[in-house]
Amino acid sequence: MVIVQKYGGTSVANIERIKAVAERVVRTAREGHRVAVVVSAMAGETDKLIGLAHQISSHPNDREMDILLSSGERVTTALTAMAIEELGYKAIALTGWQAGIVTDAVHTKAKIERITGDRMGKALDDGYVVVIAGFQGITEEGGDITTLGRGGSDLSAVAVAQALKADLCEIYTDVDGVYTTDPNIVPEARKLAKISYEEMLEMASLGAKVLQTRSVEYAMKYEVPVVVRSSFNDNQGTLVTKEDADMENVVVSGIAYDKNQCKVTVLGVPDKPGIAARLFKSVADAAIVVDMIVQNVSGDGKSTDISFTVPKTDSKKTLSLTESLTKEFGARGVSLREDVAKISVVGVGMRTHSGVAAQMFGCLADHGINIMTISTSEIKVSCLIEAKYTELAVRALHQAFGLAEAA
Amino acid sequence: MVIVQKYGGTSVANIERIKAVAERVVRTAREGHRVAVVVSAMAGETDKLIGLAHQISSHPNDREMDILLSSGERVTTALTAMAIEELGYKAIALTGWQAGIVTDAVHTKAKIERITGDRMGKALDDGYVVVIAGFQGITEEGGDITTLGRGGSDLSAVAVAQALKADLCEIYTDVDGVYTTDPNIVPEARKLAKISYEEMLEMASLGAKVLQTRSVEYAMKYEVPVVVRSSFNDNQGTLVTKEDADMENVVVSGIAYDKNQCKVTVLGVPDKPGIAARLFKSVADAAIVVDMIVQNVSGDGKSTDISFTVPKTDSKKTLSLTESLTKEFGARGVSLREDVAKISVVGVGMRTHSGVAAQMFGCLADHGINIMTISTSEIKVSCLIEAKYTELAVRALHQAFGLAEAA
Repeated sequence: MVIVQKYGGTSVANIERIKAVAERVVRTAREGHRVAVVVSAMAGETDKLIGLAHQISSHPNDREMDILLSSGERVTTALTAMAIEELGYKAIALTGWQAGIVTDAVHTKAKIERITGDRMGKALDDGYVVVIAGFQGITEEGGDITTLGRGGSDLSAVAVAQALKADLCEIYTDVDGVYTTDPNIVPEARKLAKISYEEMLEMASLGAKVLQTRSVEYAMKYEVPVVVRSSFNDNQGTLVTKEDADMENVVVSGIAYDKNQCKVTVLGVPDKPGIAARLFKSVADAAIVVDMIVQNVSGDGKSTDISFTVPKTDSKKTLSLTESLTKEFGARGVSLREDVAKISVVGVGMRTHSGVAAQMFGCLADHGINIMTISTSEIKVSCLIEAKYTELAVRALHQAFGLAEAA
Repeated sequence: MVIVQKYGGTSVANIERIKAVAERVVRTAREGHRVAVVVSAMAGETDKLIGLAHQISSHPNDREMDILLSSGERVTTALTAMAIEELGYKAIALTGWQAGIVTDAVHTKAKIERITGDRMGKALDDGYVVVIAGFQGITEEGGDITTLGRGGSDLSAVAVAQALKADLCEIYTDVDGVYTTDPNIVPEARKLAKISYEEMLEMASLGAKVLQTRSVEYAMKYEVPVVVRSSFNDNQGTLVTKEDADMENVVVSGIAYDKNQCKVTVLGVPDKPGIAARLFKSVADAAIVVDMIVQNVSGDGKSTDISFTVPKTDSKKTLSLTESLTKEFGARGVSLREDVAKISVVGVGMRTHSGVAAQMFGCLADHGINIMTISTSEIKVSCLIEAKYTELAVRALHQAFGLAEAA
C-alpha cells in the first residue's frame, strides 16, 4: 500500500519525539508499504516566529510572513529524514515546492491548486521514504513561497495522499482520535470509531482541533480515506470516511465549541439595499472568513445593526476595514466583542430527525445561558454564547444528548 | 550608487538589532542609493540547528543538512524586510534560489556557479530594497538547496555585488574593520584603513574571522570593492581593494592565527611514488581543504611520515578516510593532534623585502616556542606551534614587527 503519514507539531516537538516518529515510519515501511511523511513545525516554533514578526510590525507583510513561517517545517523535514536514515532506511526531505505543491498567491492562507507528484513518486519508486514539509507551497507565476494557514499541514497530507493515489492518509496527533466532545471538558467523552466527512467537516470548522477544515473538504472531494490517531501510542484511531447507513441512526455525533471567533457589530446602518453586500464583499476580498451573520432592524425602523463573526486573528484587519466603510455608509459605529464562544451540536442523523435545535435551546435555557446568535445547517446547530459559559454548555449538551453511551 | 550591505549573525542577533539594521539600510536608501541587503542567520541559530542534527546522527546526510541550515537565513530575511517596511520603505525578501544563486552540488560547501540577477535587478528598479538570504543557493539540475559553508554569507554578498555591478559591497560585522592582529589578544592592535585583496586573503585563510576566504577570492577576481565595518557604530571601516604603491612600503601588515586546524600524521608510509598523490586526492575528493603539508623521511630511509593540517570540523572524516588508506598502503598508522595553532605574518611588502621569515623564527625562538611546521607564500610566513603558545606568539610578533605604530 501507499501510506501517507502526517505528524503534527506535538508529535515532532523535540529530538526524542522525532526519533519515535522515525521508528514508526520505518516500521510501516518494513511492513512492505511505500511511505510518504508530511511534517509540521516543532510545537511552538510557528508561534515563536509569529512573535518575532509582531515585535517588528503589527501588520507584517504577508509575503514576507510566509518566507518566515515556512522555515519551521523545513527544519523538521530535514531532522526527520536524518532520523530515518539513522535507522538504516533511505529517506529524502522535500520542501513544499520540491514536492510540487503549487498554490494560489493568497499569502498566509493559500489554496493548493495542484500537486505534481513526479519527484515524490520517483523517490518512492527508488525505495526512499519521502519526507515533505507541510503547510507550504509555491505560486506558479512568481515562484513565491506561500503557507496554507493554521493547521495547513493536514491539508498538505491529504493533497499529497491524493496526488500519490495513496490507500490511506494517517494524521498523527496528540489525541487518540475524534471524540464526542473535548475530553478535557467532559471526561466521559467517547472516541468515535468512524465519522463521516460531513460531520468531521462541521466538527473541524466548529473548533474541534483534530483536523483542519480544508483538509476535510479536500478529503471529501477526492474520497481520501483519513485516519486520525495518536503518535504517542498504538491505539486505533478514528476513520473519517463516506457516510453509511449506520451513521444515519445516530442523531447527534458530537458537541463542538470554538473560542476563536469574535463578534463584530456595525451599529445604525441605514436600512438601504446593497450595504450588506458591500460590507461582506470587502471583508471577503481581504480573505477573511465570515462565519455567522445576523441582522436586526432597530426600533426606529430606519437603521439596522449587522453582526457577524470572524476569527479573532482577523479582528484588527476586520475592524479597520469595517470602520472605513462605516463612514462611507453613514453608520453609527462599530463594536467588537471578543468574549464569545460558539457551541455546536453535530450529526448526520439530524437530516432525518427533528427536534434537535429545540432540545439544544431548551438545555441552554435550563442552565441560564443566553443565546446571542443562532446558525444552522443540515447536520448542525450552532449558538453564540458568552465565553465564560463554554464548559458548562458543552457538559450540559453532552449529557442531554446522551453521548457518553456507545451508539 | 548600487550598494550591497551584508549583515552578519551578531548584527541581526535579535529584534532590536534587526531594527537597527533596517534603519541603516533605509538611511542609505534615502541618500539616493539602490540597496541590496544580504543577511546571515541570527547569531547562534546555525549552531543550534547543527546541534539538533547531531542529536540525531553523528554523520547527518549533507543534502538534508542543507535544507536544515538554510532555514536560519530565511527567518532573518523575512524579519529584516518587515522591519524595513515598518519604516515606510518598500522591501522584498528573497531566498537564495529566488535571488538566482546557482551553485554546484557539493552540499554544505557548495560553490557559486552563477547568479542571475534578474529578479533582484527588477526589484531594485521598482524602488524596493532587496533582502537576500545569504549562505544558500540551489543546484541547477536537481533543484536541491545548498549551503556555502561557514561564513558563506560574505560570499553571497560579494557575488550579489558582482551580479548587480554594485559600486560598493559593505560587510557589516561586530568589529570596526581589519586590524593588525586580534585586539582581544593585543590591545595595541591598529585598525588598517585599507588592505590589498591578497593580504586580506591570507589574513582570512589564516583565521582572521572578519571575512571568509572564498569571498575575498571572489572579490579579487571581479575587483569588487569591499568595506569591512561595524553595524554597532558609524566608524570608518577598512577598504579591501587592489594593491597600490603605498601598500608595498609596509613590509608586514598583520599577524593572524588559526586554532581551527588539526594536524594529521600518517606514520611509516612506504617510500614509494604515488602514495602521497593517492592520499591527497581522496582527501580532496571528500571536499576537505588541506592546508600545510610536510613529509619527513624517517631514519631507516625506507618509510616516511606525512603530516598535513585540515580544519578541525573535518577531523573525523579525514581520520576515517586516512585510516582506510593506511591499510592499503601498508603504513604503520595515523595520529591526530588537535592542540595546535597556526601563526602567520602577512604583508605584500615581503615580496620586495627579505628577512621576514628569519625575524619571525628568531622571535618565536626567543620566547621558547617550538615550530612544528613551516609554510610560506610570497606574502606570508606561517608556523604551526603548540596551541597554548598562541597568545604569547601573537603578542611577541606584533611587537617585533612594530605593528602598533601607524605605517
